[in-house]
Amino acid sequence: MKILLVGGQGTIGKKIKNRLAAENEVITAGRNSGDVRVDMTEPQSVEEMFKKVGKVDAVIVTAGSAPVKPLMDTSYDDFLKGVKYKMMGQIQVAMSATGYLNKGGSVTLTSGILAEDPIPHGTVLSTVNSAVNGFVIGAYGDFLRQGFRINVVSPPLVADSAPALAKYFPGHTPAPMSHVVDCYIKSLKTLITGQVIKVM
Amino acid sequence: MKILLVGGQGTIGKKIKNRLAAENEVITAGRNSGDVRVDMTEPQSVEEMFKKVGKVDAVIVTAGSAPVKPLMDTSYDDFLKGVKYKMMGQIQVAMSATGYLNKGGSVTLTSGILAEDPIPHGTVLSTVNSAVNGFVIGAYGDFLRQGFRINVVSPPLVADSAPALAKYFPGHTPAPMSHVVDCYIKSLKTLITGQVIKVM
Repeated sequence: MKILLVGGQGTIGKKIKNRLAAENEVITAGRNSGDVRVDMTEPQSVEEMFKKVGKVDAVIVTAGSAPVKPLMDTSYDDFLKGVKYKMMGQIQVAMSATGYLNKGGSVTLTSGILAEDPIPHGTVLSTVNSAVNGFVIGAYGDFLRQGFRINVVSPPLVADSAPALAKYFPGHTPAPMSHVVDCYIKSLKTLITGQVIKVM
Repeated sequence: MKILLVGGQGTIGKKIKNRLAAENEVITAGRNSGDVRVDMTEPQSVEEMFKKVGKVDAVIVTAGSAPVKPLMDTSYDDFLKGVKYKMMGQIQVAMSATGYLNKGGSVTLTSGILAEDPIPHGTVLSTVNSAVNGFVIGAYGDFLRQGFRINVVSPPLVADSAPALAKYFPGHTPAPMSHVVDCYIKSLKTLITGQVIKVM
């Protein structure tokens, strides 16, 4: 398979690339690194990324951040930053992908556990992660009609982030990276669609 | 109770006002009607609404729309319209409300069933409804620390909208308006918080 991996240099993206690279052609894209550069906040940049990469069998997005701070210090613009990057950035990649996916192709986005399991300082992420889940639930029917699938993986705190982030996630058990990667493989290789895939 | 009802002239808002008006002071706000005018897409306008209304015991928002069209005709700007009005508009009202709620006060927002139960043409609503649910899940802890509660009602197709909208909601059973209003009363009068309240 020819797979475009947006966020291929990130904590999760790197592990996905390692798993897939032996048996697939993996093209990485990112803001500051990767085979192709892309600014997910600019629809035109996303479209140019696809033009450079051409037709693909699958698109996986593990990129997208949002401000993390106490709610009462969170401004309208902080929310808009999360909207622009993690929410609309991923939506734009999914929408543009429909013009470049081969028949039977799939899109896999990334949300996160804060959509359902909140932490202090995490409200922008709870909001935009939920939005990405909702987009996939809303969009999968239209993807189906074109012969495409779309899912979203909702990772918990992951092992490789735990040293830096565990203090923000009290009581959360870090997930082994291999379990997280399994979820992306499930989206990629099974025929499920419209699913919010959680790490078991 | 003194209650600010944003969207008080809408299909659901009118029924909430009818139920509450006998035993409460209900102040309605809306874009083109109501006791106070507000443009929910402008943080400054939301803040001015609260300045005019002053301290309240509860805020209920039933306003907020989003483009409804086939996904493949839906542009980045269509998504941003839904973000601006139904998602960020409600978030802004909730955030500003914390400066004007009396002790023990509550905020009740409105999302909708498309967050989990999609229809053709409804992807923007699935996305922004989910975002509003996620905001409430993320924010309720910070509200709690200030002595406030926050919930969101997720209405299905409602009886008074069915004549116009049932054709877009195949297989959906319209909910009696009184059942929908019950959900807002539950948020207002019980001590639940952080809940996505569904019509039973």
